[in-house]
Amino acid sequence: MSMTMVEKILADHAGRSQVEPGDIVEAEVDLVLGNDITTPVAIDEFVKIGVDQVFDRSKIALVPDHFAPNKDIQSAEQCKRLRDFADKYEIENYFEVGEMGIEHCLLPEKGLVLPGQIVIGADSHTCTYGAFGALGTGIGSTDMAAAMAAGETWFKVPPTIKINYQGELDEWVEAKDLILYTIGDLGVDGALYKALEFTGEVIESLSMAGRMTVSNMAIEAGAKCGLIAPDSTTENYLAGRTEADYECFYSDENADYEREINYDVGEIEPQVAFPHLPENTRNISDIDNIAIDQVVIGSCTNGRLEDLRTAAGILEDKVKSNGVRLVIFPGTQEIYRQAVKEGIIETLVAAGAAVSTPTCGPCLGGHMGVLAEGERAVSTTNRNFVGRMGHPESGVYLTGAAAAAASAVAGRIASPEEVM
Amino acid sequence: MSMTMVEKILADHAGRSQVEPGDIVEAEVDLVLGNDITTPVAIDEFVKIGVDQVFDRSKIALVPDHFAPNKDIQSAEQCKRLRDFADKYEIENYFEVGEMGIEHCLLPEKGLVLPGQIVIGADSHTCTYGAFGALGTGIGSTDMAAAMAAGETWFKVPPTIKINYQGELDEWVEAKDLILYTIGDLGVDGALYKALEFTGEVIESLSMAGRMTVSNMAIEAGAKCGLIAPDSTTENYLAGRTEADYECFYSDENADYEREINYDVGEIEPQVAFPHLPENTRNISDIDNIAIDQVVIGSCTNGRLEDLRTAAGILEDKVKSNGVRLVIFPGTQEIYRQAVKEGIIETLVAAGAAVSTPTCGPCLGGHMGVLAEGERAVSTTNRNFVGRMGHPESGVYLTGAAAAAASAVAGRIASPEEVM
Repeated sequence: MSMTMVEKILADHAGRSQVEPGDIVEAEVDLVLGNDITTPVAIDEFVKIGVDQVFDRSKIALVPDHFAPNKDIQSAEQCKRLRDFADKYEIENYFEVGEMGIEHCLLPEKGLVLPGQIVIGADSHTCTYGAFGALGTGIGSTDMAAAMAAGETWFKVPPTIKINYQGELDEWVEAKDLILYTIGDLGVDGALYKALEFTGEVIESLSMAGRMTVSNMAIEAGAKCGLIAPDSTTENYLAGRTEADYECFYSDENADYEREINYDVGEIEPQVAFPHLPENTRNISDIDNIAIDQVVIGSCTNGRLEDLRTAAGILEDKVKSNGVRLVIFPGTQEIYRQAVKEGIIETLVAAGAAVSTPTCGPCLGGHMGVLAEGERAVSTTNRNFVGRMGHPESGVYLTGAAAAAASAVAGRIASPEEVM
Repeated sequence: MSMTMVEKILADHAGRSQVEPGDIVEAEVDLVLGNDITTPVAIDEFVKIGVDQVFDRSKIALVPDHFAPNKDIQSAEQCKRLRDFADKYEIENYFEVGEMGIEHCLLPEKGLVLPGQIVIGADSHTCTYGAFGALGTGIGSTDMAAAMAAGETWFKVPPTIKINYQGELDEWVEAKDLILYTIGDLGVDGALYKALEFTGEVIESLSMAGRMTVSNMAIEAGAKCGLIAPDSTTENYLAGRTEADYECFYSDENADYEREINYDVGEIEPQVAFPHLPENTRNISDIDNIAIDQVVIGSCTNGRLEDLRTAAGILEDKVKSNGVRLVIFPGTQEIYRQAVKEGIIETLVAAGAAVSTPTCGPCLGGHMGVLAEGERAVSTTNRNFVGRMGHPESGVYLTGAAAAAASAVAGRIASPEEVM
């Protein structure tokens, strides 16, 4: 009987030859991830379980990235708990401030996420790893605790929605625009507890950075995960990052999809998701004059080198508008370093950007760019819920890196074409 | 009758031919400075005064640097108040995130502080400007409000202590070590409400960066201000930064000093000020093994290009110790940009440093590197009071940039010699 990618991965990890949507399975996991917000709770639960070691010291990753570098005493204590836990249980993949980055940028870069794997993380954007043909999904802290002890967790096998992107991308249309457009079409609960499978020539043409941007936001349509079939692009990305073996799974040609959707990307222009839901998307050309106070470029959605290159391409020899704060966060130290080498950081700082060490900070209103009452931000991040970046009366407009950079120059929501 | 520098500056600004210690004078001010913590309070008081404009739009500087980029909603609202006030009263020297830096690094760089001036700031380290032969001193927010309205404030003329530094500096001894040594000798109240005047061949040999480091910490001995006579080094620094006229004041040869102190700097080695007072200085060679959790390089004391060069010189081709977080903050955007150009930032990031956009953050336990209970930090900042960088049970050890970088490599307090 035929299966989709996600079904095959779950069957494999559950030791079964066949699963189908709705089945409850116990599956082994390849990597358990936690950050400085979610892990302390998981540590408490882990201690209650009463085991004296973790299931596998090499299969747990702890990344203090949300409120790190420590924003206050409480976050300092949270990060210290991660550090002490990693020490005590000899966790191999603990990443300290200065060695690290935003978790979903960092783990792929370190070769820790491979095709065919199951990666669970106490962070909703763990779905990013779908870009590698892995089942990445967010879990709660208690499930994280149990998985750290047992190396497995339960899943209800999700049905799959196949989305097929055909045609040619316009000059300024990015991976981010594809996924924003898709969420606008599906709605924020349009894929609730379903797997998305992103396919078609357009997806195949994307870099791993672009694919990660797409998979990263699967959760914003409610999806359990958002998978992309591994190919030579995947293989090239992993070469030099890992020597581990991996098995690729592909949906059978006659696999049973709950639904198939086709998009002609030639009809997609840069998208802007208006407050306060990622589904509130509009074409950038349809937007009137909306003044902004801040632009954020970075995050697990758009903090990769390709995104910084895009932003620098727009900002070169330009200066941000007077009334706008432009804050830019490379996703990892390695991205930061490479951006220095390529002259990107110099361009950004010259343009009036505040360039910071990697942190999730502003994306979740944590620190390093929180909004005051009435302020509006254009952001390359993934969520624009009420109060997401600060005051409940502030608003976040989600875009790709090019539109964000263009908006910083214009001082209002603007398309790249308007400033180039 | 003869006068000291500070007496001459006060007499000049009070329209008097002569003043002496203990006199109360009303003096005109050349610049009034405020930051995101102190200015909102000053704005409230300014409104109560009821004037409809500030005394001079070009003589007020507002710098959101302490909790900016905004660490939370409250700090976002504070920064917004600065911004709105600057807009309403057309303040010429408002510096936005991304255009700015740490106030006491920024204003000199912008050519806003000149010899012979009186600069008052609602920040205790306004004494930094003594490096230019200006009377820079910290004031409260209400005095700031009154000065923004009236352009003058009152002073009690301080007596002057003259400190003379002679001899030759050892290889790793920095300006920071001179001032730490001096505070260790004087005590934190050794110069209470007095002017310090730093003199001698060693001071004359210092760059403006080094002089600013020395003057910056005058307040840590309780001093009202800490002046250095302007010379060709001062003149060269100001060339290209300002076209304004200025008048230099120098102490008369027979000026009446309260006390004169002579140091032979050949006897000074790198200093470490132990918790919890800047006067708790020790020679670095006398210190046993003290493990550390964090190193901070930056601040208005040691966040200048020369300090980053020193740190990069130590960290080149080395990596920070595993157990240490190394956070580095260039003092201004211009310093950041120059450090990128010189390859300094690349060296620092490669060494495992988290390099952030300029902010006072960690120096005052504000954000971007707050300490947890029991943690110890080596820091190039200026204060190590109880809880200064975070938890009341944490400890801060003050050093220069070289010793801080060396300590990051060693994972304990270490002298540069030990790691080079």
